[in-house]
Amino acid sequence: MRILILGADGYLGWPTMMHFASKGHEVLGVDDYSRRLIAMQSSSEALMPNPNLEERIKVFKEITGHNLECRIGDLKDFRFFESLFSEFTPDVVIHYAEQPSAPYSLRGYDEAHYTLTNNLEVTHNLVWAIMNHAPDCHIVKLGTMGEYGTPNIDIEEGWLDIEHKGRKQKFLYPRQAGSLYHTTKVLDTDLLWFYTRTFKLKVTDLMQGPVYGVSTPETDLDDRLLPNFHYDDIFGTLVNRFLVQAVAGVPLTVYGKGGQIRGYLNLNDTLQCVELACMNPAGAGELKIYNQLTETFSVNELAAIIKRVGDSIGLNVEIKPIPNPRKEPEDHYYNPKNTGLLDLGLKPHYLTDDLTASMLEKVIQFKDLIDESKIMPRVIWNK
Amino acid sequence: MRILILGADGYLGWPTMMHFASKGHEVLGVDDYSRRLIAMQSSSEALMPNPNLEERIKVFKEITGHNLECRIGDLKDFRFFESLFSEFTPDVVIHYAEQPSAPYSLRGYDEAHYTLTNNLEVTHNLVWAIMNHAPDCHIVKLGTMGEYGTPNIDIEEGWLDIEHKGRKQKFLYPRQAGSLYHTTKVLDTDLLWFYTRTFKLKVTDLMQGPVYGVSTPETDLDDRLLPNFHYDDIFGTLVNRFLVQAVAGVPLTVYGKGGQIRGYLNLNDTLQCVELACMNPAGAGELKIYNQLTETFSVNELAAIIKRVGDSIGLNVEIKPIPNPRKEPEDHYYNPKNTGLLDLGLKPHYLTDDLTASMLEKVIQFKDLIDESKIMPRVIWNK
Repeated sequence: MRILILGADGYLGWPTMMHFASKGHEVLGVDDYSRRLIAMQSSSEALMPNPNLEERIKVFKEITGHNLECRIGDLKDFRFFESLFSEFTPDVVIHYAEQPSAPYSLRGYDEAHYTLTNNLEVTHNLVWAIMNHAPDCHIVKLGTMGEYGTPNIDIEEGWLDIEHKGRKQKFLYPRQAGSLYHTTKVLDTDLLWFYTRTFKLKVTDLMQGPVYGVSTPETDLDDRLLPNFHYDDIFGTLVNRFLVQAVAGVPLTVYGKGGQIRGYLNLNDTLQCVELACMNPAGAGELKIYNQLTETFSVNELAAIIKRVGDSIGLNVEIKPIPNPRKEPEDHYYNPKNTGLLDLGLKPHYLTDDLTASMLEKVIQFKDLIDESKIMPRVIWNK
Repeated sequence: MRILILGADGYLGWPTMMHFASKGHEVLGVDDYSRRLIAMQSSSEALMPNPNLEERIKVFKEITGHNLECRIGDLKDFRFFESLFSEFTPDVVIHYAEQPSAPYSLRGYDEAHYTLTNNLEVTHNLVWAIMNHAPDCHIVKLGTMGEYGTPNIDIEEGWLDIEHKGRKQKFLYPRQAGSLYHTTKVLDTDLLWFYTRTFKLKVTDLMQGPVYGVSTPETDLDDRLLPNFHYDDIFGTLVNRFLVQAVAGVPLTVYGKGGQIRGYLNLNDTLQCVELACMNPAGAGELKIYNQLTETFSVNELAAIIKRVGDSIGLNVEIKPIPNPRKEPEDHYYNPKNTGLLDLGLKPHYLTDDLTASMLEKVIQFKDLIDESKIMPRVIWNK
């Protein structure tokens, strides 16, 4: 397959590039390094040094012999976007190219405006580029489980059949997110569903939970191939952040009561899920939606796992609740359905103690680079 | 009350300015004339000549003695938006400032991109201007009944209580619109609901049906005070378009089977509804939603009314179905609830034969200005 990856320099984008190249696919990646810029501007740099995309591609070629291509540019610029299609006709576009930080999206007006316009305009430009240049191309879009929020009813996979006063209608499952970032993904889904049904696009929207991990078969080849691994309050997702805190000897910062439950998955399972989505494309006019998670945990459960495993390998892990900077329920019902990708063949890598220990060992290797000032929340929206 | 009106030059904005001034309120209106520009660019100018906003304000002052103020500028520019609050502290902001044409929104990439970014950025800037400068100010936002589409179940007022597998949750009523323009209003509602519940804003979102009419107590004072009255395929709403066709001797162009049902209201009732919304503000953190319509009609029913009344005053009105340029169900269930505004005291002006005749007479006064080349659909998205 010819695969165009948007946001190719990101935590998921880069491992996805290598994964598909290793499987023999032709891959073109695009990025504008905006996440690196935001990380610098907000002092939220990733833990390990990450060569830029062109350098990483050279290293990967030296080690594996596989070719990868990239273009550096801003996908909000439609002329740049369209120019990609003059040299590359993709069978599938994987769209990761969004500002992904919830705290950043609410840091102030400029950050909120950037998040809204960047995320919506890139998605909208993608739709028009596909309509104009590759109408049969399948779009695989990364959404988030955060779109659903934490409703008091079961979270079905994307859609909900409603019976009301004796009549029936199937709707997009109603979404209600906890940050502006997550809300932009709700808007993306609304927008994609409008264009999909109206102009016969082929779209898969993956409602992904927080991803953890740093190791894939390709990233393990050389430390220069590691994904950007964030442990800061801006880009760091929960498990990765706790791993670094455990190694640094900083108490695990549980936000509020710690009863917040989410669906998590291993980085390797993201790669599996995205590959399964690519291999099972939506039909014309069809919006396929999968809930992309393998296990649910509360914050307290994750803290307990990381403390137990950390203590077992000689770290002295403490847990310390702090006031929740976010506005979110801390004790709630949560029952998301996730059978769609399992039915397609997903074989989950669960968060075992062995896996947790191996992630801690990887972080220990980079212990000297940890900057503790990046850990505590700097954006508060629960005033 | 101090009232800030965004989109003050529009079909609804200008009559709203005069209405509130007549009631003794202090009114500041803002517009960037983008609708006038788009109308010129797409050869979709309104029927009657409309002096610009500053000129209309002068005429209104001469005739009534009431003061109105306006500022001309682009609300996408946040510095301009914020500057309004340095000179005027509103109690309520009425937000009409969106690109309102469904066909224009799908004419091509540039028009789609403009519609998406203009509508979302103005709404988002409004939220931040309010949070930064007037957190107690009430926002009255014009949405559209088109957000709901035509579901097979009753359309409740904004919200839906769902029982699923024995558990209950109240959600925003699921929305599924028929054009990009209408979809931007869905996104607006999602965005407003996020900010309302997270940052304790006070918001009323009015799901308005297509408005018809040209006469209000203030527009009747002088033809220079008439609202912009569109009959073209880009900005013309159904009833207004049919009125002009009847007068011009052009067969009424029913799109497709004509079974499309919508909820309509008189321009005077828009003014009543908006005033009722302003006088009954939402509480902090509350998003009030009303369905703003007074009657439902199918396209065929409206064509029949206008033919009957037109024939009775000596016009010879024909009806001629044409292929539907839009992608929409032409035969569907439609049962929207609209008790909220009636409970607040709305006294509807229904589409009686007398009212229809008076509207036809007004159009006849401007018959010589009708340009028949503006009537037939020029944007087709039902391919």
